[in-house]
Amino acid sequence: MTPESAFSTAEQAAVYRAIHERRDMRHFAPGAVDETVLARLFEAAHAAPSVGLMQPWRFLRIRDPQLRAAIIDLVGVERQATAQALGIRGGEFLNLKVEGVRDCSELLVAALAPDDGTVFGRRTLAHETALASVACAIQNLWLAARAENLGLGWVSLFDPAALAALLHLPPGARPVAILCLGPVAEFYPRPMLELAGWRAARPLADLVCDNRWPEEAL
Amino acid sequence: MTPESAFSTAEQAAVYRAIHERRDMRHFAPGAVDETVLARLFEAAHAAPSVGLMQPWRFLRIRDPQLRAAIIDLVGVERQATAQALGIRGGEFLNLKVEGVRDCSELLVAALAPDDGTVFGRRTLAHETALASVACAIQNLWLAARAENLGLGWVSLFDPAALAALLHLPPGARPVAILCLGPVAEFYPRPMLELAGWRAARPLADLVCDNRWPEEAL
Repeated sequence: MTPESAFSTAEQAAVYRAIHERRDMRHFAPGAVDETVLARLFEAAHAAPSVGLMQPWRFLRIRDPQLRAAIIDLVGVERQATAQALGIRGGEFLNLKVEGVRDCSELLVAALAPDDGTVFGRRTLAHETALASVACAIQNLWLAARAENLGLGWVSLFDPAALAALLHLPPGARPVAILCLGPVAEFYPRPMLELAGWRAARPLADLVCDNRWPEEAL
Repeated sequence: MTPESAFSTAEQAAVYRAIHERRDMRHFAPGAVDETVLARLFEAAHAAPSVGLMQPWRFLRIRDPQLRAAIIDLVGVERQATAQALGIRGGEFLNLKVEGVRDCSELLVAALAPDDGTVFGRRTLAHETALASVACAIQNLWLAARAENLGLGWVSLFDPAALAALLHLPPGARPVAILCLGPVAEFYPRPMLELAGWRAARPLADLVCDNRWPEEAL
């Protein structure tokens, strides 16, 4: 490898910093996202890997206040439905701040495009590989946002058919994430669901093994 | 935001560099991956977002040469099946270097764990949100690998049921990716499928829109 293509120690530290300090943000501060910054974030998303180079990600920037209001309502409905489904923990769930769709500066929707018939690398896993490509694009955008000192939250509290209808998605397209983006006062020092006592994270050692799935479930 | 939590311009550049210089590598060079580096890569994967903090990713490190040989065979079978499915472009496909399972220093498999019953954030999108979490973990590992000057390739040429059987995955678990990791002589300057003339990438402008899916399909 040529010296120019190797990352320096300082560059490595910055990449790891973004990875480890990225948070799923639900608390946003006032302020706009600069257009040139937003363009860089989309370029970062667009640099993601995709199966067979199909680039199945599509991004909708929600600028119409009425459309945002409709999305806020849709998330509100699913939040209540989730509380119901959670049973005994429903009340605790409703006390959590689980999304920032009302407060964030920019509201985006990431969608999976209709299947373009790509066969390369997805003969056996057509839907999964395309969806994974969209997720990788979102993760790129998320890490770039952290580096830009902007918060991002991935909201999955929605009925996909209802959101698809709101956004006029064509048949075969599928909304994957509502993304809340914008300035934040501070990043959570740890995942908010841990800080709030909702759930403990698992130790990495329990999730890695050699060769075969162990007898004791991973 | 406190000055300590803000990324510097140099740190931002390093994060974007990893995002834009990450490649899906199929050509590997001899040499081992240091154990401490591998541990950092797994920690990076484990720092990914996950729906409801379910952390559904599992990583299997393939160390048994016989098991690697069996995976190589499985990928070979799917490569031939893909060539068949591609019809007129099948011969061109077979001339491409599409994976490095034989040559890479470390062979990993990323898998989706059996559903743990998490409701938070996945009442309407149970499988998709869990799978997206695994994809985000893989993308973290990939970017960290680039920062460590190691190549990584995501191979999706496999029959998931056959690979699950080889790895003794329990019911409900699902292999998502075979990951080839290791030293490389050089990173491709652009995605290899573009360099090889297999397919052109799309301009970002065609993939972003305001509010609603446009009349002319995105």
